[in-house]
Amino acid sequence: MKVVVLSGGVGGARFTRGLLAHLGPGHEVSVVANTGDDVWLHGVRVCPDLDTLMYTLGGGVHEGQGWGRADESTRVSTDLAAYGLGWDWFTLGDLDLATCLARTELLRTGLPLSAVTARLARRWDTGVRLLPMTDTEVETHVRLLDGTLIHFEEWWVRHRAALPAAGFEQGGLAGSIAAPGVVEALAGADVVVLPPSNPVVSVGTIVAVPGVREAIAATAAPVVGVSPIIGGAPVRGMADACLAAIGVETSALAVARHYGLRRDGGLLDAWLVDDADATALAPLRDAGWAADATATLMTDVPTTARIARQALALVGLDV
Amino acid sequence: MKVVVLSGGVGGARFTRGLLAHLGPGHEVSVVANTGDDVWLHGVRVCPDLDTLMYTLGGGVHEGQGWGRADESTRVSTDLAAYGLGWDWFTLGDLDLATCLARTELLRTGLPLSAVTARLARRWDTGVRLLPMTDTEVETHVRLLDGTLIHFEEWWVRHRAALPAAGFEQGGLAGSIAAPGVVEALAGADVVVLPPSNPVVSVGTIVAVPGVREAIAATAAPVVGVSPIIGGAPVRGMADACLAAIGVETSALAVARHYGLRRDGGLLDAWLVDDADATALAPLRDAGWAADATATLMTDVPTTARIARQALALVGLDV
Repeated sequence: MKVVVLSGGVGGARFTRGLLAHLGPGHEVSVVANTGDDVWLHGVRVCPDLDTLMYTLGGGVHEGQGWGRADESTRVSTDLAAYGLGWDWFTLGDLDLATCLARTELLRTGLPLSAVTARLARRWDTGVRLLPMTDTEVETHVRLLDGTLIHFEEWWVRHRAALPAAGFEQGGLAGSIAAPGVVEALAGADVVVLPPSNPVVSVGTIVAVPGVREAIAATAAPVVGVSPIIGGAPVRGMADACLAAIGVETSALAVARHYGLRRDGGLLDAWLVDDADATALAPLRDAGWAADATATLMTDVPTTARIARQALALVGLDV
Repeated sequence: MKVVVLSGGVGGARFTRGLLAHLGPGHEVSVVANTGDDVWLHGVRVCPDLDTLMYTLGGGVHEGQGWGRADESTRVSTDLAAYGLGWDWFTLGDLDLATCLARTELLRTGLPLSAVTARLARRWDTGVRLLPMTDTEVETHVRLLDGTLIHFEEWWVRHRAALPAAGFEQGGLAGSIAAPGVVEALAGADVVVLPPSNPVVSVGTIVAVPGVREAIAATAAPVVGVSPIIGGAPVRGMADACLAAIGVETSALAVARHYGLRRDGGLLDAWLVDDADATALAPLRDAGWAADATATLMTDVPTTARIARQALALVGLDV
C-alpha cells in the first residue's frame, strides 16, 4: 500500500512512527514535511520538522521533549552566547547542529533541499521516503496585533505563542514549487493521511504550496485526518494560538470544517476525533463525512499504531 | 611604545604573549595576523591564525597543542562524520566551532573580517589590537610535484606537509587590500617585529598583501626578526617543507637572507638567532645586519619575555 502523510513536527512524527508499527514491512510510506518553520540560524539552515521526523523515525530523538537529539549537549550554543551572539532563546544542541551543518554544507554545493534531505536521511533508517514540501526557501513570519512582524520561531519558541497574532506571512510560499515527488506521491497514493499536526502552520503551510491542494483534490485515494485537538485544546504545541490568528475555533469540529470536506472542495473525506470530542461526530456525519471517535492521545507506539489503524479503517482500509 | 607584530599562528602567538609580559602595561601592540590559511569548512569560516592569537593572548588556548581551545570536545565533528560528511582529517572542536560560527554569522551581516575580528576579540582580553592582514578572502593552495593543486590545510593538516610541494598559489592575494589600520600601524610604529612564524606561508603571505612590504620599507621604525629555525630545523610546524618549496635552505642564515636587509630592499634591520645558529652572526654582521644569538626556544612565558626583550634590545629599544 502507498501511504502519503502530510506532517509537521512532533505530532506528525509520532503518528508516522505508530503508522509504520501498524503497517509493518511491505508498504511504501512517503512523508511530506512542512518546511515553513525553517530558519537560518548562525549561518546554518535549521529545518525543525524534517529533523524531528528524521530523528523520531530513525530512533535518535529525545523522547522526553519529542524533538532534538537524545544525549544532547549545548557546548557550541553556550560558547556562542559568550560572544554575545546567537538568539539566546533558541537552543540548538551540538548534535542537532551537526545535522544542520551537514545540511548547510550540502545546500551550499547547490543541491536542492529534497536531495539534501534524502542524503541526510540515509544515516537514519527512517522506513519512509522523507520529502520536504518544497525546495523553495519559505520562512514564516507572524504579524502581531500592533503590526510588528517577527519570525515564526521567535514567536513560537521565545514567546511560546503568547503574543496575540493577527496572522501569518509566509515569504516565498505563494511562489514555491512542490518538491520533486510530492505531487506524484499524492497522485499515486492509496491513502493520504493528515496526522494530528498543527492545522495552520504545519498542514496549512504544506497545502498552500501551489499544486498540493490540487493534487489532493485530484487523487483517487481517500484522505483521512486525525484531530490534533482533544477536548477543545491542542494536545501539545500551541495550535490554539495559530487557530485564533486565522479566526478558527479550537475544537475538533471547527478544525474539520476548516480543512473542509473534499467533495465540497475541501481536503478531507474522513476525520478521527478523540472520545472527548464525540459531539462533533453527528454534525460531521450529517454533512457527509466519515467520522469516528477513539482515544487519540499518542501515549506510546502501540497506542499510536492503534490510532493509525483506526484512521485507515475509517476510509475502509483494514490493513 | 607602539609595536607592530606580523604573526602566523602558534609561534607568533606565543611570542606575542611573551612580548606583552615583557612590556607590561602602557604600550600599544598591534598584531597583524596571517589569514592566508583561512578556509571555508562545513559552511563556516575558519581563521586558524586569528583564533590561535585570540585564544593564546586571551587565556583560552589549549596549552598542550598550542592551538584550539582548552577543555575542548568534538561532539559536532563526530556527529558530522556519522553523515559521511566533513573532512575527517580536519578536527574542529565544539568551542572552536562556536568561534567560527560567530565569525560566519557576523560576516554574513556584511561586516568585513577586520570588524568581525574586533568584535570577537572583545570577549577575549587579548591586550593587543588584533588585525587580519586583509579583509579580502585569500586561500592558499599547494601545487604538488605532479601538478595537483590541494588546499593548504589539506596539505598541512592531512599530509603533515609530507607531500613535496612545487609551490604555493594564493588566490585573492595579489588583488587583496590591506585591512584598515595595517598600513597605518606600520607607518606609526616605534618598532616592527617578525616573530618566529613561518617565513613562507605566514609572514611571507602577510608581506605579499599589496602595500604591506612598501609600508615596512617606508616606516621610520626599526624592523627586527626572531628566527623560527633552531639548529637547521623549524622549532614546530613544518616550515622546512615550505622553505624547500620556494628553494630556500632551512637555516637561520638562509631565512634572514630570504627576508633581506631593509637598506638593500629587504624587510629586516636585525635578526635574532638561536645560540645553535651563532655561525650566522658573522656573515650577517659583515653584510650590515644587527644580529645576535640567544636561547630562542619559547619554553614558557618568562623565557619568551626574555627573548622579546633581547629582540627589542637588538634595535636599541631597552624597554
